[in-house]
Amino acid sequence: MKRTLGTCYYPEHWPIEIWEADARRMKDTGLTWVRIGEFAWSRLEPSPGKLEFDWLDKAIEILGQAGLKVVLGTPTATPPRWVVDKHPDMLAVDADGKPRKFGSRRHYCFSHEGYRQECDRIVKLIAERYGKNPHVGAWQIDNEYGCHDTTISYSDAARNAFRVWLSDRYGSIEALNRAWGNVFWSMEYASFEDIDLPNLTVTDANPSHILTFRRFSSDQVASFNKRQTDIIQAHSDAPISHNFMGRITDFDHFKVGDNLDIATWDSYPLGFLEDRVGADDEHQRAFARQGDPDFQAFHHDLYRSVGKGRWWVMEQQPGPVNWAPYNPAPLPGMMRLWAWEAYAHGAEAVCYFRWRQAPFAQEHMHAGMLRPDNADAPALLEARQVADELQSAPEVSAPQAPVALIFDYDADFAWATQPHGAGLTYFQIVFDTYKALRKLGLSVDFLRSETRDFKGYKIVAAPGMIYMPQDLKEALAEADAQVVLGPRSAARNADMVIPVPLPPDFPGLDITVSRVESFRPDMPIPLKGGGNFVGYREELEGAAEVLFELDDGQPAAFQSGNLIYVGGWGDETALQRLFSDVCSTAGIATTELTGGVRCRETDGHRIWVNYGSTLAETPAGTIEAAGVLFEPL
Amino acid sequence: MKRTLGTCYYPEHWPIEIWEADARRMKDTGLTWVRIGEFAWSRLEPSPGKLEFDWLDKAIEILGQAGLKVVLGTPTATPPRWVVDKHPDMLAVDADGKPRKFGSRRHYCFSHEGYRQECDRIVKLIAERYGKNPHVGAWQIDNEYGCHDTTISYSDAARNAFRVWLSDRYGSIEALNRAWGNVFWSMEYASFEDIDLPNLTVTDANPSHILTFRRFSSDQVASFNKRQTDIIQAHSDAPISHNFMGRITDFDHFKVGDNLDIATWDSYPLGFLEDRVGADDEHQRAFARQGDPDFQAFHHDLYRSVGKGRWWVMEQQPGPVNWAPYNPAPLPGMMRLWAWEAYAHGAEAVCYFRWRQAPFAQEHMHAGMLRPDNADAPALLEARQVADELQSAPEVSAPQAPVALIFDYDADFAWATQPHGAGLTYFQIVFDTYKALRKLGLSVDFLRSETRDFKGYKIVAAPGMIYMPQDLKEALAEADAQVVLGPRSAARNADMVIPVPLPPDFPGLDITVSRVESFRPDMPIPLKGGGNFVGYREELEGAAEVLFELDDGQPAAFQSGNLIYVGGWGDETALQRLFSDVCSTAGIATTELTGGVRCRETDGHRIWVNYGSTLAETPAGTIEAAGVLFEPL
Amino acid sequence: MKRTLGTCYYPEHWPIEIWEADARRMKDTGLTWVRIGEFAWSRLEPSPGKLEFDWLDKAIEILGQAGLKVVLGTPTATPPRWVVDKHPDMLAVDADGKPRKFGSRRHYCFSHEGYRQECDRIVKLIAERYGKNPHVGAWQIDNEYGCHDTTISYSDAARNAFRVWLSDRYGSIEALNRAWGNVFWSMEYASFEDIDLPNLTVTDANPSHILTFRRFSSDQVASFNKRQTDIIQAHSDAPISHNFMGRITDFDHFKVGDNLDIATWDSYPLGFLEDRVGADDEHQRAFARQGDPDFQAFHHDLYRSVGKGRWWVMEQQPGPVNWAPYNPAPLPGMMRLWAWEAYAHGAEAVCYFRWRQAPFAQEHMHAGMLRPDNADAPALLEARQVADELQSAPEVSAPQAPVALIFDYDADFAWATQPHGAGLTYFQIVFDTYKALRKLGLSVDFLRSETRDFKGYKIVAAPGMIYMPQDLKEALAEADAQVVLGPRSAARNADMVIPVPLPPDFPGLDITVSRVESFRPDMPIPLKGGGNFVGYREELEGAAEVLFELDDGQPAAFQSGNLIYVGGWGDETALQRLFSDVCSTAGIATTELTGGVRCRETDGHRIWVNYGSTLAETPAGTIEAAGVLFEPL
Repeated sequence: MKRTLGTCYYPEHWPIEIWEADARRMKDTGLTWVRIGEFAWSRLEPSPGKLEFDWLDKAIEILGQAGLKVVLGTPTATPPRWVVDKHPDMLAVDADGKPRKFGSRRHYCFSHEGYRQECDRIVKLIAERYGKNPHVGAWQIDNEYGCHDTTISYSDAARNAFRVWLSDRYGSIEALNRAWGNVFWSMEYASFEDIDLPNLTVTDANPSHILTFRRFSSDQVASFNKRQTDIIQAHSDAPISHNFMGRITDFDHFKVGDNLDIATWDSYPLGFLEDRVGADDEHQRAFARQGDPDFQAFHHDLYRSVGKGRWWVMEQQPGPVNWAPYNPAPLPGMMRLWAWEAYAHGAEAVCYFRWRQAPFAQEHMHAGMLRPDNADAPALLEARQVADELQSAPEVSAPQAPVALIFDYDADFAWATQPHGAGLTYFQIVFDTYKALRKLGLSVDFLRSETRDFKGYKIVAAPGMIYMPQDLKEALAEADAQVVLGPRSAARNADMVIPVPLPPDFPGLDITVSRVESFRPDMPIPLKGGGNFVGYREELEGAAEVLFELDDGQPAAFQSGNLIYVGGWGDETALQRLFSDVCSTAGIATTELTGGVRCRETDGHRIWVNYGSTLAETPAGTIEAAGVLFEPL
Repeated sequence: MKRTLGTCYYPEHWPIEIWEADARRMKDTGLTWVRIGEFAWSRLEPSPGKLEFDWLDKAIEILGQAGLKVVLGTPTATPPRWVVDKHPDMLAVDADGKPRKFGSRRHYCFSHEGYRQECDRIVKLIAERYGKNPHVGAWQIDNEYGCHDTTISYSDAARNAFRVWLSDRYGSIEALNRAWGNVFWSMEYASFEDIDLPNLTVTDANPSHILTFRRFSSDQVASFNKRQTDIIQAHSDAPISHNFMGRITDFDHFKVGDNLDIATWDSYPLGFLEDRVGADDEHQRAFARQGDPDFQAFHHDLYRSVGKGRWWVMEQQPGPVNWAPYNPAPLPGMMRLWAWEAYAHGAEAVCYFRWRQAPFAQEHMHAGMLRPDNADAPALLEARQVADELQSAPEVSAPQAPVALIFDYDADFAWATQPHGAGLTYFQIVFDTYKALRKLGLSVDFLRSETRDFKGYKIVAAPGMIYMPQDLKEALAEADAQVVLGPRSAARNADMVIPVPLPPDFPGLDITVSRVESFRPDMPIPLKGGGNFVGYREELEGAAEVLFELDDGQPAAFQSGNLIYVGGWGDETALQRLFSDVCSTAGIATTELTGGVRCRETDGHRIWVNYGSTLAETPAGTIEAAGVLFEPL
Repeated sequence: MKRTLGTCYYPEHWPIEIWEADARRMKDTGLTWVRIGEFAWSRLEPSPGKLEFDWLDKAIEILGQAGLKVVLGTPTATPPRWVVDKHPDMLAVDADGKPRKFGSRRHYCFSHEGYRQECDRIVKLIAERYGKNPHVGAWQIDNEYGCHDTTISYSDAARNAFRVWLSDRYGSIEALNRAWGNVFWSMEYASFEDIDLPNLTVTDANPSHILTFRRFSSDQVASFNKRQTDIIQAHSDAPISHNFMGRITDFDHFKVGDNLDIATWDSYPLGFLEDRVGADDEHQRAFARQGDPDFQAFHHDLYRSVGKGRWWVMEQQPGPVNWAPYNPAPLPGMMRLWAWEAYAHGAEAVCYFRWRQAPFAQEHMHAGMLRPDNADAPALLEARQVADELQSAPEVSAPQAPVALIFDYDADFAWATQPHGAGLTYFQIVFDTYKALRKLGLSVDFLRSETRDFKGYKIVAAPGMIYMPQDLKEALAEADAQVVLGPRSAARNADMVIPVPLPPDFPGLDITVSRVESFRPDMPIPLKGGGNFVGYREELEGAAEVLFELDDGQPAAFQSGNLIYVGGWGDETALQRLFSDVCSTAGIATTELTGGVRCRETDGHRIWVNYGSTLAETPAGTIEAAGVLFEPL
């Protein structure tokens, strides 16, 4: 498939007189896609029922006439003031009980039926009007679900919906009491109407209660999204997307993806390095102008899976942004590198956000492809280079990788509910595992937790997947792949209760986690032969073969047949040792990568990138700082 | 007295079919006591007035038949949902004005009369039914008063009760205005109805206001407790206890103890090390799997005094817990060490919490004596060892110690009201003093602030006791003991006002604190001869003999007759120098202890414990890591 | 002008019997001024309409008879309880929506008309009664506006007043929507009634909204103050003052000063060092007992400008205070040094706060000139020394300095609205610039942002002045002075929008800021020749002459004619290099000062102070720790 470029554009921000020039310049830059409309509700419907679509008709026409294709967004992330006045209780409520007011964006609770109906109405109007418009090449629903911590709301609407959802799930209050162990601390309920949201309790609420509320909240995002996709599908054949964010894990993206044709995400490597990667100061300094070398690739691979193979970068950082603690400029070349890395992971399109830097409002310090004075900004020049390169570039595709990692949003909810040790998260253990695999030169696929067919994979890893249904256990035990489990894999039943027999209770794997502990990160427990367990470990009993030992002779990992169980959180050395061994068993060749060098195999090439700020050597040759290297295979 | 072991058990969590086997196994392990019932209200009274005591009858019968004695808890720490629905305003309110909701435990305000009446009712029912039951060997009221920051509530119930309490205490609003100095900043009140709780003020509330509200809040705990003890005493001759916590100092445990027969406490050495000891990182790493070497002993000695000699460990940490920032496993041997240390300090019983790890709800990661799958956990094995050792062990008792420390909860309220320097607390200065004494090999008794007879003590210390009544001053001045005062001793009158003549104004001690200062802890002020004042010091004037000087020649401590006044917060070296000297004057032999080695004298033995993780030498011989050594005297 | 001393006194705190002795002792100490009355409302009007002025008559009489002059305060910073009961909604509301309750001080919202009327009433009564009293030599309005974060209130009164204020400022809602760019994120309003306060939004509110609300809040302080000055001016000819605080920048002190005759401020060097200077640990340790060597001088110079030449220290720290994280005692001599430094900067009077330490209420740990037991405290002795020295001291005056710094409160609001990098503030960049100038031995004047006549100045600097009106740009371009701009100077228009042409767009200065970035403070960007940009920099394009370069050859500062633009936040070395060069161009001699030595030129002298704790050398001779040296010119 031919890869494309695009941008995000807000015609409503600029005088109509310059739209044509903008469109021409986009086309000249080599762009294909223009996303518009996703925050424009107050211009489409300035007051209740007063519709003004003419300007949007015109904008689409101008862009289309210039040879561009439009991604049309539904404007539901920014309901106008009058919508909030009409539904004052539609606001989400934070964990302290405070309503989250109008004045920025995402000011709605996913559970509010009145707001859902407003969304139905405006989306239907848009779908009817533009569903068959030849210039509308794709749709986007809403914008960045979950951003600004908006998945979870403690509103009355949420509480009422939660009670109904619980009743559907558990059938009877007795079943719920039993499943959650509510006899503990006399927390038993007499009816579903007794159940409150798990905030503001004196000490921790029941983890079963918290986890279940997180599952409910996740489902509300999916059902909110589906209302819109159903409407659009009734009027349009263009593919439907949503732009996810980096490291937002509090709703199940796969369930939202079930109703999308394309998954997209908004990639801001520098901002994410500061507040989402979890890196130490040294790493942050080393990659302050480039971003973490694995964070983008992780999400590329994850959302490729969410999109069932079809995915884009819908917003690509174009320069300094406005929202991170610090907002540095990218190293020259990075805006090209990020695009090529996305293509190497199978992206159909990379759209830079935004076309022209807006001089006003919340994002006026967010760079664009153009400066506010309309001069070219560095992003435009690098995008043009990519566009030129695409002319002669081979078609790239993302073939099945040899290694699969299961990413289970539900496990993330469970870890968030009960990290057991300060700072421990599911995302981080999967990300650490991903990093270890990448630093061995491997390409990785993500699998959702519902996967039961692992054909074609030589390795499947499911670290930290805290609840594993029986049929998943069986499927893994029977897979051809080497299967790497632990720590915390299969540690709870579906209701956050410790199962008996004790975990992991895997068919064919005679191991029991007899006790677990978390500990200070500055007290690592050394492994014999190198590496450490950091922050969390499990005491293991069993008759399986010992694969790794602690320095004190205790078993650290067991293997039995194709199943490997690791009883702790390995540091970088430990994880690389482990996966080197597993790769060797699985017959996968590895290449140890260091610094900022990474690679990804496509069907015909190995594409190398250098996130480092200095020249680096690779097996395929020298690669400059922020450089990209295409190695034919 | 013969020492005993026990456990905490929740029959309501397990099928009735296994109760007998559990009871037999407890007995076989060598346990004597089983605490039950303290969280079972929803099973005793599932809906208003619908009583279901049969299961509890049965549980007590089974345990008793197995030869165990029951500690029966009143279930008032966990009122069921329907109680809260009946009294929605019974919830405590936090300092931000937010109600602290149902969904965990301790969800009540001590001042709510409606809830007090619900407690009267259920406690009376229980007392009537089980008051004469031969298997009920003791009672426990409620559970862990003050835990989860529940002593202080800013509810309407508290405000109304506070006004009545103030009226009783001050008689007239003019007296209160005068006592508190309300003329300052025009804070004068026209009536008691004007007085609000001291939260959410623009800047600090009047310290007299804050301190008085803390005193009121403390009294509410005592009166809440007394309502239950009165009821039980009317129906039962078994001793009554309450299980206090570690380092909860916001209510006066002595006043609660006045209505108890036995004080007990819940000892979680590893969790407490992390969040209550106030130790630096190095200390935390050194003792992460053992606990602080003095923190348990401190509370043993303190609660022995609260219990007027009778005290237990009601909950002993049995392995990793679930609630600390990190939750490591104890070093092998520690669960035995902790028990023997408790006995050395006079504990009648040590009960491990809990019998079997519950697989569900808030504490499902809290270890028990049994694993969730019913296998022996390490705590069971160590408890059995203690039980075996107790067979041949001599009877131990806790004779009067040579050194007494006054612990005055009211002083803790005053320091919390006005620490004067960031991080300074009363608990810490007493704990530092206690540590210094223990590291000199000394046994220590705690005395409550009402003590006037100091007979038998060679040293009495009262650091930081910010208000000292005149008759206490006189009693100390006339005591046979060396009396160590300061800093901040007698620094305020009963209403948190600086007295004139200036502090300490002690009979026979010609010293005046002319000025005080707090300073950054990284700017220690050196003492001539070693050690420092850290964080706080006083400028002293007077004609008494100078005992210590600062490096710059200023006096740091004075002595006059038996009275010593120390004008600063000594570091470890300073406190050990000071008390070495005082011991020498008092004719007490000392042994300097280092690392994790500590000892305690009983009538016939000196019992040594080693909190260290390596072998250590003591005057009585070598002691292994986590070891206990009995030295006959 | 002859310099004077004074104190702050609360006759209502002490028995009337000692007032005469107090007055005599003040006089004997050499004091001239006594400030009284500013917190006494509950004694002047204990209940609504019940006036009790007799005691104040008496106090003024006694003080006057002793030869002292009274500064009479209006008591509006501490409305009594009954005022709050009468106007329950007069309380300010914090950003979380919580009312800030009675029980300390400053418990009012500046926008509440009912409270403004109560103030009118009590002030009128006081002005009528004492307006012509010969002993009342000056007035003080209220007390420390803005202290305890009280400028900004999110109350209903504020919201309603804000809407009216906005309507006045913008005329139409369309104009406001346009000016703020509310089309962004569909934030457009249909009427002024739609506009809420910018708190509790889901993510950042529109910076134009936030900045405008800060401007409104600032104006409310000025209009609140003016109501009182209008009333007093109608009844008295004595000069009117207000006592400002250190580093409170959230209202425009110049606008308040427009209605004052004298600006005063409350100087607490040790407390401010800890919580307002922004110094690192090493600096804090070095100056813990002296205060930052530039912080006081900065405010002296700033408030001299606010007071149009007339200014006092109304409260001078007299020893340890009670409100800082740590509260150390000043080095002996500092209380004298601070007074002489104030005089060197033109202070008419220095008043020590307070006369006698109050033994009760919030400030009972705040030192006074007397101890609570009436003994002399160190402040009294040092004040007496100053009084003696003043006898023979030359008259000092504060002539125009060669260097001027613009201090623009509005710029501080804008930086607070959008720091762009964590921790960046306008105050700090101006303070860093001031420090650099002081360490070159220079005297500095502050200018308000409305200044257009720069006659007499050889250097004018306006770093960080984010909005610069066109006529200011022109005035600076035409000034005789070397003008130092940047970073962020003129970076926005009046509504917080990026202007096009891009900043700084200065007449005669061909420079464009093409891109800006913030970055981690531990990643400094080195300048060729020494020094660094830290935390913030700009990419500059243009044809002006390059004055400084980065190590990588990029331009760091440009000069064109008298205009210099600096594209980054310079560290100490960078700023000193820059201003050395500029001074050299401007023909100003400099002397590099180190450690705690600073100087200030008066008409006949250079007055040297040593904030260091050891002896120091100066060009004028040796100066002891905490010493003052008068060098005749």
